[in-house]
Amino acid sequence: MEMAKIGPGIAGGNNRQTVTDEDGEGRHLFKRWCEAAGLEMGLDEMGTMFARREGTDPDLPPVYVGSHLDTQPTGGKYDGVLGVLGGLEVVRSLNDLGIKTKHPIVVTNWTNEEGARFAPAMMASGVFAGVLDQADVYEHVDKNGKKFGEELERIGWKGTEKVGERKIHAFFELHIEQGPILEDEGIDIGVVTHGQGLKWLQVTLAGKEAHTGSTPMPKRRNAGLGMARVIELVHEIAMDYQPDAVGAVGHMEVYPNSRNIIAGRTVFTIDIRSPEKEVLDAMDGRIREGIDTICDALDIKYKIEQVGHFDPVTFDKGCVKAVRDAAERLGYTHRNIVSGAGHDACWINRVAPTAMVMCPCVDGLSHNEAEEITKEWAAAGADVLFHAVVETAEI
Amino acid sequence: MEMAKIGPGIAGGNNRQTVTDEDGEGRHLFKRWCEAAGLEMGLDEMGTMFARREGTDPDLPPVYVGSHLDTQPTGGKYDGVLGVLGGLEVVRSLNDLGIKTKHPIVVTNWTNEEGARFAPAMMASGVFAGVLDQADVYEHVDKNGKKFGEELERIGWKGTEKVGERKIHAFFELHIEQGPILEDEGIDIGVVTHGQGLKWLQVTLAGKEAHTGSTPMPKRRNAGLGMARVIELVHEIAMDYQPDAVGAVGHMEVYPNSRNIIAGRTVFTIDIRSPEKEVLDAMDGRIREGIDTICDALDIKYKIEQVGHFDPVTFDKGCVKAVRDAAERLGYTHRNIVSGAGHDACWINRVAPTAMVMCPCVDGLSHNEAEEITKEWAAAGADVLFHAVVETAEI
Ligand SMILES: NC(=O)NCCC(=O)O
Ligand SMILES: NC(=O)NCCC(=O)O
Repeated sequence: MEMAKIGPGIAGGNNRQTVTDEDGEGRHLFKRWCEAAGLEMGLDEMGTMFARREGTDPDLPPVYVGSHLDTQPTGGKYDGVLGVLGGLEVVRSLNDLGIKTKHPIVVTNWTNEEGARFAPAMMASGVFAGVLDQADVYEHVDKNGKKFGEELERIGWKGTEKVGERKIHAFFELHIEQGPILEDEGIDIGVVTHGQGLKWLQVTLAGKEAHTGSTPMPKRRNAGLGMARVIELVHEIAMDYQPDAVGAVGHMEVYPNSRNIIAGRTVFTIDIRSPEKEVLDAMDGRIREGIDTICDALDIKYKIEQVGHFDPVTFDKGCVKAVRDAAERLGYTHRNIVSGAGHDACWINRVAPTAMVMCPCVDGLSHNEAEEITKEWAAAGADVLFHAVVETAEI
Repeated sequence: MEMAKIGPGIAGGNNRQTVTDEDGEGRHLFKRWCEAAGLEMGLDEMGTMFARREGTDPDLPPVYVGSHLDTQPTGGKYDGVLGVLGGLEVVRSLNDLGIKTKHPIVVTNWTNEEGARFAPAMMASGVFAGVLDQADVYEHVDKNGKKFGEELERIGWKGTEKVGERKIHAFFELHIEQGPILEDEGIDIGVVTHGQGLKWLQVTLAGKEAHTGSTPMPKRRNAGLGMARVIELVHEIAMDYQPDAVGAVGHMEVYPNSRNIIAGRTVFTIDIRSPEKEVLDAMDGRIREGIDTICDALDIKYKIEQVGHFDPVTFDKGCVKAVRDAAERLGYTHRNIVSGAGHDACWINRVAPTAMVMCPCVDGLSHNEAEEITKEWAAAGADVLFHAVVETAEI
């Protein structure tokens, strides 16, 4: 895995966060591979890469296939990468077999899918689909106050093509499941029919910094305790709705973060998801109510900002069928599945017929450097992807 | 306040953490002031500064007076500084009045009282009193992995004098209360009879990093949720024992700290205190039991390290009387008080007769850049300090 050598992690995985130098390096490598495969590279103002293989009818809208090359700070080697390189394998195989398709095929690397360095996730595909505003996301800052737009320019991957103007005949994304269902059931292929909806609520609690030893308990306005109670609240609410929901807090900042100072301020992000819009909205409502009650009891102020959001997704029937038919034809075991994670495909589905192919991952583990898949799983996924894409691009 | 210009905070207070460049600068300023007052500077291997005014009988053990110049990352202008500069004022006043004392008087700046950058607090006075090991604390690291001993050397304030060999006739420390009692009751002077005991328990929880969206609720091993539950536990236990105890978690680290990753590891420090050793021990026991139960339920591993500890302190009867008598004689309102915070005086009390003078601070607020005192409070505190010291040093 040449790609995994770029932005190595500390435990066998990758730290190739979006619009870092390492991301730039990964893009150069991908570009070289695309050029070697005879593809022509396009680059839009969000930095998304579009590598085109011409069709026999160049006027037909292309079939797109791809995912993302950016990773979490402690990410795995397959989350995203499998889908981009899977797309590249589709065109390499077509080259090897000397097969031409009517529709052009475009292999895509969407910028900032992870949303780790800059919220929200699936940023470039969100702008492409018209749900996020380009000028706005350019201004989003990372923990060090660096702006997304400036970092994209700094690494040299801000293109000139206007975002979202491409016509898309269909989009296919191969991705690891990032959950345990396929492996547990011993199934080769997940035919993704739906995607969960998500909300990211960034909460700021403002209490009062004070001495941990000499401030009497009743005089405290403890923003750390408030955060702890909200974390428990989110967990309780998610447990109430599971298996139709999940929820947790993974990002937390504490100020001034000193052993003998009661936290005066905390900032953290709640991540809640459900395949049912009503459930997601109900959770959101209960969380806001709960935060109000918690803060009232502790005499602390709060602010809630929604920094990420997408509704549950129903993928395109035709594209889903193309995936299911391919799996069936090729003799792989398969089942319908709901994506627990967000994906670029979820946004693109709003503007073009879209579907996803999922393959299992060991122990359902992802967003962890230990993320792993077997060669057989990857091969089956790429095989199904190839057939769904070629079927749709027509020979 | 010349000293407060060094290591300015961001909200009117100070960030002059121990053995930083700013600490070095503050020490130079203090040294210049001491030299101007005719004092001779000693410096020990822990970087503690000893500015000596000779006594008429130089063979008598000196009376020590002082506190610390280091601050919290978002600290106030008076916590520590008032006691050091109060000590300097004692000798300046003696100079102005042309008064000689039998015992020499030594004004002291103890290194790393705050324990913010390097645990534990009251580090140099702890080594002086023989309760902490010098070689060991030299190896303590800050968040960036820098070692205390190397940083002390780097800023040029590691002396050659062996630590703890000085004979101390008595030690007096003036400090702001850092709590609300004196102000609430409208009292000028706190005669500190006791100090609370403290334990700092650094807890590491190890769960499993996993995707927040695609990992089913029952499969999670959430170290962030574990931390939240421990924070609540500490609060509940402290509430059970208050007003005879306090407890909170002010320091928290979350890994990998990404919005869509369930925390695989958290590290945080519990701070519990009580004037009763039995209460402190009981809290410690209940906390350890509770952590075990919490981690068991969440299938996460834990490690508990005690990174700070001192037993409750009873200050020296004679020195306490000197403080009370001075307050009484000078006509200040006063009351006995238990120090909620740890102080260098708490350690020195183990090796020499020691007492403390406290003055109110606005709103009981400390470890906050907004920490404030009135001129009258400071003057009353310094006045009582002067009389207690001079009385003990004998004219
Ligand atoms: N697939 C994936 O990990 N996407 C990142 C956005 C999310 O958290 O779902
Ligand atoms: N006085 C003071 O804030 N000392 C620091 C040690 C403690 O937390 O009590």
